[in-house]
Amino acid sequence: MIIDGKKIAEEIVAGLGESLRGRRLGLVVGNADAATESFIKIKSRVAERLGVEVVRGELPYLAKTCDGIIVQLPILNTKELLAQLPPEKDVDALSTRPLVRAPVAEAVSEILSRAGVAAANKKAVVIGAGKLVGAPSAQLLKDLGARVAVITQTHGSLEELKDADIVVLGAGEPGFIKPEMLKPGVVLIDAGTSEAGGKLMGDADPRCSEVASVFTPVPGGVGPIAVVMIFRNLLTLVRRS
Amino acid sequence: MIIDGKKIAEEIVAGLGESLRGRRLGLVVGNADAATESFIKIKSRVAERLGVEVVRGELPYLAKTCDGIIVQLPILNTKELLAQLPPEKDVDALSTRPLVRAPVAEAVSEILSRAGVAAANKKAVVIGAGKLVGAPSAQLLKDLGARVAVITQTHGSLEELKDADIVVLGAGEPGFIKPEMLKPGVVLIDAGTSEAGGKLMGDADPRCSEVASVFTPVPGGVGPIAVVMIFRNLLTLVRRS
Repeated sequence: MIIDGKKIAEEIVAGLGESLRGRRLGLVVGNADAATESFIKIKSRVAERLGVEVVRGELPYLAKTCDGIIVQLPILNTKELLAQLPPEKDVDALSTRPLVRAPVAEAVSEILSRAGVAAANKKAVVIGAGKLVGAPSAQLLKDLGARVAVITQTHGSLEELKDADIVVLGAGEPGFIKPEMLKPGVVLIDAGTSEAGGKLMGDADPRCSEVASVFTPVPGGVGPIAVVMIFRNLLTLVRRS
Repeated sequence: MIIDGKKIAEEIVAGLGESLRGRRLGLVVGNADAATESFIKIKSRVAERLGVEVVRGELPYLAKTCDGIIVQLPILNTKELLAQLPPEKDVDALSTRPLVRAPVAEAVSEILSRAGVAAANKKAVVIGAGKLVGAPSAQLLKDLGARVAVITQTHGSLEELKDADIVVLGAGEPGFIKPEMLKPGVVLIDAGTSEAGGKLMGDADPRCSEVASVFTPVPGGVGPIAVVMIFRNLLTLVRRS
């Protein structure tokens, strides 16, 4: 016996009749390639026949507003997703070969320039090596001619801070940098925003402002500047293209 | 010097002026929690002031239609995303404690029942152990009282097929099951859809239909039934709630 799946499917659809009319089916799509789109089309066609509305969106929203949810597999991981990001549209510099600098690094650059700090031949310490803050800030400081030490939880020592002229913080550990750890007169740029007790905190204890010659508070320091740098990057990319 | 990030940001926004008006900024959101939403709100506010339209969606679409793209990190991986899927809306049975059976397993169940096959005390072999086909089909067959052997690339032997009464295929290897590997009269349910040379193929060589007593072709066998089972699951969940 050769099973006629289409016929059986038809009978089941007929059996469902009007029972699902007006229901909403949420659809989370993590990888919108051609194969995925073709699966979605097949499901959407059945939904239409049954009077079920298909709503594409993000899971928390769909979980609130839909009767059922399809998570269309595969879901790409971060690396796979970023590999699909075209560099000429990548305002955050997250793709493999970005054409602009990360917004936080642009903010650090702006702050140094407005404070009249020349980084060349200075000792700079960057805490953290993440894609958003640490890695691009270290690259910026190298490009500006500083000698750069990068410290992470597993590499380098906080002792390096003792003779650093410029410090960029990107660890996300609220208040763990204390004034005693720093060289007086240091340029301290705190991009380590995290939440502690429901309020935004930087990596630096606010008392660090007493020893620093240049200090960026959290909130109200690096954050707002980094946000607008997204748009300056957008302008750069738009003008290039 | 304490850096006033807000003021610097204001000056940069003023400097951008009208240069970005009418541009479109795509936004890929992989994890719509409160922290993420708050970051998105901050960026959207700046976009609005600059006359930039923010468009949320999936990367391939945004890459075609926007001038710049933000991938709002973190992107959840599959496991993290599925952990957020409420079981009472989970029509595909992908969450940790699903309330319905996976659509493919429902399709297998429907096919067995329509073909008048009683699985109790039969020997069943399931090829593949994936979340969508292999694992839920093996569970179904166990629930129906069959003795079930699961074969994957690293576990079990295809020799098991020789005396299997019921076989469910979910490997995604086009045409690799040949008639010689099967017991004559086998119930052969092929859910192993894959693409080969631009056309849909099952795991079974179509010649298997000559030795099988029940055979599901690809396309037109399990696939269409599994799709409508999504909707039968939706009805089950809607009625429960």
